[in-house]
Amino acid sequence: MIPQQNRLWWEREDLCYKDGNLVFSGKSAAGLINVTGTPAFFYSANRISQNLERLQEALSQLDSYQIYYAIKANRFAPILTHIKKTGLCGVDICSPNELLHAFSCGFTCSEISYTAHAMTNDELRLLADNPDVRLNCDSLSTIRRLGQFCSHRKIGIRVNPAMGIGYRDSETLRYSGDKTTKFGVYREQFEEALALASKHGLIVDTIHFHTGCGYLNNQLSIFDEILEATHWFTDKVKDLASVNLGGGLGVPHDEDDVNLDLDSWVSVINKHYGGKGLTVCVEPGDYVVKDSGILILEVNTVERKQQTDFIGVNGGFNLAIEPAFYGLPCEPVVLEQKTDTLKPVTIAGNINESLDVWKDNFPMPDQIKEGDLLAFINAGGYASSMMSNHCMRGQVSENIVF
Amino acid sequence: MIPQQNRLWWEREDLCYKDGNLVFSGKSAAGLINVTGTPAFFYSANRISQNLERLQEALSQLDSYQIYYAIKANRFAPILTHIKKTGLCGVDICSPNELLHAFSCGFTCSEISYTAHAMTNDELRLLADNPDVRLNCDSLSTIRRLGQFCSHRKIGIRVNPAMGIGYRDSETLRYSGDKTTKFGVYREQFEEALALASKHGLIVDTIHFHTGCGYLNNQLSIFDEILEATHWFTDKVKDLASVNLGGGLGVPHDEDDVNLDLDSWVSVINKHYGGKGLTVCVEPGDYVVKDSGILILEVNTVERKQQTDFIGVNGGFNLAIEPAFYGLPCEPVVLEQKTDTLKPVTIAGNINESLDVWKDNFPMPDQIKEGDLLAFINAGGYASSMMSNHCMRGQVSENIVF
Repeated sequence: MIPQQNRLWWEREDLCYKDGNLVFSGKSAAGLINVTGTPAFFYSANRISQNLERLQEALSQLDSYQIYYAIKANRFAPILTHIKKTGLCGVDICSPNELLHAFSCGFTCSEISYTAHAMTNDELRLLADNPDVRLNCDSLSTIRRLGQFCSHRKIGIRVNPAMGIGYRDSETLRYSGDKTTKFGVYREQFEEALALASKHGLIVDTIHFHTGCGYLNNQLSIFDEILEATHWFTDKVKDLASVNLGGGLGVPHDEDDVNLDLDSWVSVINKHYGGKGLTVCVEPGDYVVKDSGILILEVNTVERKQQTDFIGVNGGFNLAIEPAFYGLPCEPVVLEQKTDTLKPVTIAGNINESLDVWKDNFPMPDQIKEGDLLAFINAGGYASSMMSNHCMRGQVSENIVF
Repeated sequence: MIPQQNRLWWEREDLCYKDGNLVFSGKSAAGLINVTGTPAFFYSANRISQNLERLQEALSQLDSYQIYYAIKANRFAPILTHIKKTGLCGVDICSPNELLHAFSCGFTCSEISYTAHAMTNDELRLLADNPDVRLNCDSLSTIRRLGQFCSHRKIGIRVNPAMGIGYRDSETLRYSGDKTTKFGVYREQFEEALALASKHGLIVDTIHFHTGCGYLNNQLSIFDEILEATHWFTDKVKDLASVNLGGGLGVPHDEDDVNLDLDSWVSVINKHYGGKGLTVCVEPGDYVVKDSGILILEVNTVERKQQTDFIGVNGGFNLAIEPAFYGLPCEPVVLEQKTDTLKPVTIAGNINESLDVWKDNFPMPDQIKEGDLLAFINAGGYASSMMSNHCMRGQVSENIVF
């Protein structure tokens, strides 16, 4: 058993060791597995509520605000209904099936924001028929085609300020920046977009910009610059009622990451859009759910190959794609602490692909044995929502814990 | 209409333009879509048969051989049953559910080769109960635990010669090389593996090595070197009856790729393992199915953003992950040729992620309009088998065409 004072960077009240055993949302993690077996995702309902309450409290410094949880981060139905019941936010969705799904979980149209790319005509007809859904159009084509199906509908325009932030400045995770991306309307086409909306009798009341992905405190100065750049757009909209800052609020992935300070974040927002009678909308995804989730896997193989100690587990990158494809850490922790002596190991998944490695050369307790259990923290966002049945190893349970 | 003599690099008899219309497996591609709508995968049964026949013909230069199609490339049931009925090969699988699936599609245990990583005890019990399945153990842990459940079972050992080839020398797609990977038993532990098998009464009759991924003609000299390195292992196995060279045979992804010449490939194999009374096994995946498949999507957005011409389609990287995550080309072609004037465009998918781009700055006919159809060629392998329902945009039909 490890002394309580040696807390690890990720430990918090609802995810920590007590007497050497991992406790998740007030319950023994090993006890949860007795019911479900592995692989299994667990999501802490309380943590999700806390994340939303923290956001709400910070945003309450603004005159008016609205949170839309981006369900593409995690659409597990019990999570959506839990979020609905908190009454703290609506949802942001990006496809017709997400719309149906959010509705099926209890959200009404007026609680839904719709921001999608490459929309079909069928999709636009659905949005024309449901004017209470807040639609953000991300291209002139969308405005033009929507205008054929309805008039007098309020719309937002997603703009692209040609600046962006990615987690640790990753190129892959940039939604906008120097290179022209598929998202939003750029300055070059913005006046044409407004004219097109006007021609079709559509009322532009929202400007939407999604500028980041996983940004933390260190990146708030860029966030400030981006907001500065958005005035060029918002100043041109006469019926402007709200600005939507998109999502991208990050959570720490390892001990080097510095938490996003929400008060500082809101100060930046207030500086640009406070006191103007506007509703500020945000669409957090990861921030709401990522640190609420863990994925528990069982060690089935412990073996030295050449000079590397490998640990094989019964789940792979098809269950949580971010470590393999985005290089985002998904830290493994033991369910039972037996020693505080660490040694570097490589933790590999059970998919026949060379990139299926959870952690390369990572310090872990040196007594891990076959049959032991590992929890991967920060598995609540962009894991199950992107999972595949590759190699038919896609069997995993999802569970909400109250 | 484009003159017939201007054939594109990928055109062949069952995938070509006739009178300006794309013909797939003898049928109008546009006609197929009339039945299924989009997005839709189509697989040519004849092309799959031809690919297998070509392989068989080349391998028939050897004394004895066996082809196992690696179903993780594409497990669509009609494809598996079609392949079963050709009688040309068995299947290579890598999980218990793939075993059940292959069985459900008509393959018997003796036609199945099982090569998996990080196997669970339940998995090993299943293999212990089905000794006709040819099992390749890729670690000492597997051998040790299998030995607890059965004896006198024939097994293969997957070895790692610490050399490898990736498509265009990609690091991500390397299964073995300078860096120690999770796959196979290395020289350092090989004698221990043999002793462990012997201790448990398991008979090692196969040496398996998977050394490449997507290799083409230019890489045959490395293939030769790798086979040279495998003798160190095979020379030590007294009951050796077969060598399994794994998969990795590639297909051209764009016009710069040079086809794999199967006769040259077999010559290398023959040089190393011919005339020894051994059965040579191979596990092609992509080679069998990749060029048999196309994915047809509909253009819903044509729009200039800044100085870039974007084409938005009704399907994204969740349907075919290789372009976004592995950088593998998946070439788009029009269903109807209207002009031979080309211009560079960026073709983007309908997922709200910045990496969801099919092709960046790629020359396409300059008259593509909203409502047009595009086929992405080489969509038969590692596309549907890895697809996800991310953003709930995972609705796609799969269809075999005879």
